[in-house]
Amino acid sequence: MSDPAPASASRPERRRLRGEPPIRIGMLGCGTVGGGVLRLLADNRAYLGDRVGVPLEVKHVLVRDLDRERVAACDRALLTTDPDVVLGDPEIELVVEVMGGETLAGELVARAIDSGKGVVTANKALLSARGPELIDRAIERRVDLAFEGAVGGGIPIIRTLRDSLASDWVQSLTGIMNGTSNYVLTKMSQEGATCEDAIAEAQALGYAEADPSLDVDGYDAAHKLVVAAMLAFGARVDPAQVFVEGIRGIDPVDHVFADRFGYVIKPLAIGRDLGESIELRVHPALVPKTSVLANISGVLNAIRLEGRALGPCLLSGRGAGDLPTAVSVVADILDVARSIVAGVAGLTTRGIATKTRPLMAREKIVARYYLRFSVKDQPGVMAKLAGALGDVGASIEQMVQHGLPSEEGGPVDVVMITHRTTEGAIDRALEAVGRESFLRRPVRLFRIEDV
Amino acid sequence: MSDPAPASASRPERRRLRGEPPIRIGMLGCGTVGGGVLRLLADNRAYLGDRVGVPLEVKHVLVRDLDRERVAACDRALLTTDPDVVLGDPEIELVVEVMGGETLAGELVARAIDSGKGVVTANKALLSARGPELIDRAIERRVDLAFEGAVGGGIPIIRTLRDSLASDWVQSLTGIMNGTSNYVLTKMSQEGATCEDAIAEAQALGYAEADPSLDVDGYDAAHKLVVAAMLAFGARVDPAQVFVEGIRGIDPVDHVFADRFGYVIKPLAIGRDLGESIELRVHPALVPKTSVLANISGVLNAIRLEGRALGPCLLSGRGAGDLPTAVSVVADILDVARSIVAGVAGLTTRGIATKTRPLMAREKIVARYYLRFSVKDQPGVMAKLAGALGDVGASIEQMVQHGLPSEEGGPVDVVMITHRTTEGAIDRALEAVGRESFLRRPVRLFRIEDV
Repeated sequence: MSDPAPASASRPERRRLRGEPPIRIGMLGCGTVGGGVLRLLADNRAYLGDRVGVPLEVKHVLVRDLDRERVAACDRALLTTDPDVVLGDPEIELVVEVMGGETLAGELVARAIDSGKGVVTANKALLSARGPELIDRAIERRVDLAFEGAVGGGIPIIRTLRDSLASDWVQSLTGIMNGTSNYVLTKMSQEGATCEDAIAEAQALGYAEADPSLDVDGYDAAHKLVVAAMLAFGARVDPAQVFVEGIRGIDPVDHVFADRFGYVIKPLAIGRDLGESIELRVHPALVPKTSVLANISGVLNAIRLEGRALGPCLLSGRGAGDLPTAVSVVADILDVARSIVAGVAGLTTRGIATKTRPLMAREKIVARYYLRFSVKDQPGVMAKLAGALGDVGASIEQMVQHGLPSEEGGPVDVVMITHRTTEGAIDRALEAVGRESFLRRPVRLFRIEDV
Repeated sequence: MSDPAPASASRPERRRLRGEPPIRIGMLGCGTVGGGVLRLLADNRAYLGDRVGVPLEVKHVLVRDLDRERVAACDRALLTTDPDVVLGDPEIELVVEVMGGETLAGELVARAIDSGKGVVTANKALLSARGPELIDRAIERRVDLAFEGAVGGGIPIIRTLRDSLASDWVQSLTGIMNGTSNYVLTKMSQEGATCEDAIAEAQALGYAEADPSLDVDGYDAAHKLVVAAMLAFGARVDPAQVFVEGIRGIDPVDHVFADRFGYVIKPLAIGRDLGESIELRVHPALVPKTSVLANISGVLNAIRLEGRALGPCLLSGRGAGDLPTAVSVVADILDVARSIVAGVAGLTTRGIATKTRPLMAREKIVARYYLRFSVKDQPGVMAKLAGALGDVGASIEQMVQHGLPSEEGGPVDVVMITHRTTEGAIDRALEAVGRESFLRRPVRLFRIEDV
């Protein structure tokens, strides 16, 4: 029998002309993102098939419960509750993990890689905890592991770091990576809401989970930061050592003071390549009102990169949601499928998380600081506060005392903005202040980031 | 002789293991961008080679004059003034065009494609004029034509439209695509400079050419918009029919009025997919101070996309400059080289500029309008202006008369902000007003864009 594919045809064309099969996809999970992926694959079938060279075909969809409402959007004949049906099928060349969670998802992704299947996932918790290990496996088995949907929803941050900046050195990365936290702080800042009320409103609107901890305590942003650092700095780090501070307990008065000094409080994730070490931290911070990040409001996300050659670059958009994330997942499916058809699977995963890098200790952070002291209004307090900062070499740029106390000796807020200093110095100053009897409550500290 | 490459090896690995040659590159031009490309290729040699599978090697560099200072950064043995040395060399698989201009660059790019070489270019003027034709040639010859550097300098807009949004429908695109114009308008807005003085300052700083026409008259932005529309809307359009209005002749008083109404004047390029037709226009416009685009200042560029699934997404950064553009060119070199090694050259070019689309006529633009009338201060003028607008069905949202005339009956500025209406209606109103003897100067019109 003669070969229907001429020697001059490209590899994908040969695959098609020889009647070779489509790329068969196994989906793990079919929640909101999974449903969006199925819809986009169906809506763009012809276009995607043309870009890959052969059609893309979803063969199995793993779900927990065959009778759940949500999976109605997909052909019920594809559904299975048995992971072996997906992973044990040698025809499946590409596995899309959108089930979430760490334990089962991690096990299935590892099995998919080990059996030579390409993997697309949007699972930032899994990647933060086990990314480097899974990347090593993928490189060893020559398969791709792609995860654009894990960071910034529909914002193409992973692809930008991996492909667009391939020849540049990313020096820093500063982002608003959690939409829930940004919504809560925006609500507090613009409407004077308390943190609790703003969280309750975010829950009512579906922007926050019933248990909002992962979002408002900073862990979700920390997962994304760790994943972004794998690409930006090639860094594999110990995620447990990333400094994480949430937004709970921020007082409305802090927004009032921030505004008065010309700042907005934003939930930042910050990464810097310091050569010797990597600086990674997640915390609310004061940013100047004139900065672009100050104007990223509500549930929007934004990431600012600083490349040595590129200079500054900002990407912003919807950081979550079923469809934006599905757009990223389908972009990855396209990439991985093209690599499989071309016979070059595994190449894109090579440059990611190549070096184990130590994290800089929190005490070495250098920043300007906002310090709010709730004190008894009595003579000598200001002098003592200023003295404590002076003793550690931290100089004061601005200082303000808020309002009049209701009674003689009652509580009053004193806010100081320092010049640049180390967090270790601030620690020592606050330790000294903590011993004073005039302090009514723990000192509130914000780092000021001039981004 | 046994094959040193085992059957299990991927195609690029087989190429490497068999001692197959590196990807040899021919550069056309070696100005500032070209010099940046050479530097980035040299600095990242090992990393890029690892990502491609084989090394990247610059073999020839075409220059106009062997003795010019600028090419000092590159190995002089590579230099040639003869295009045939580059294009006639069968070892050259990839041509990088960074010489600029349309005629010679177009001829050489076409020859490179015809001889089966992949092409990377940052030449927006060439692509705007001949993009669809060159893309057709590239598809026919199964080579890639990549041009990330043509739009937005280092901002990864092309890759985002082509790859990240592969499964989405881009509904609109609004951008600040010319850094020089943005610098001039920023200077006018923030410092009250005249347009002439701001252009002169941009020239002194190297942000504007000796002949600034291409930038300040809007043609550079129009080139980029046409190129972006090839990817965003798959559209091939007649570039001569794109509506283009430059920023010359904007009066400082327009910035004062814009500010008073809560707007900033920005040099916009706007594209919209209307189904039947495509709307493409380049002109200065009033944007609300609170919008992100209002805060993109100086020479920065920004592009806001609206995807049906993705929602809004903004990319911003340095839109020009040797190194940012070189970063984009090298990202393209990496992509094209990988496709060559994988034997899948030509696939990425397929989805670009697939359909000839008509452009919407300017008269059909729907917007709110800022209209400044310089009139003699005499009774009845306001009523006549309002009447002319009312006659065409355009209603007035706000109106203000500026300052006091120096003498009775002297000139005075009246500014009206309309509700949404068609540009055709505004044309008719202005034609009627133009016949009035109280009009001292042509009416100044700005579209208001709520982006």
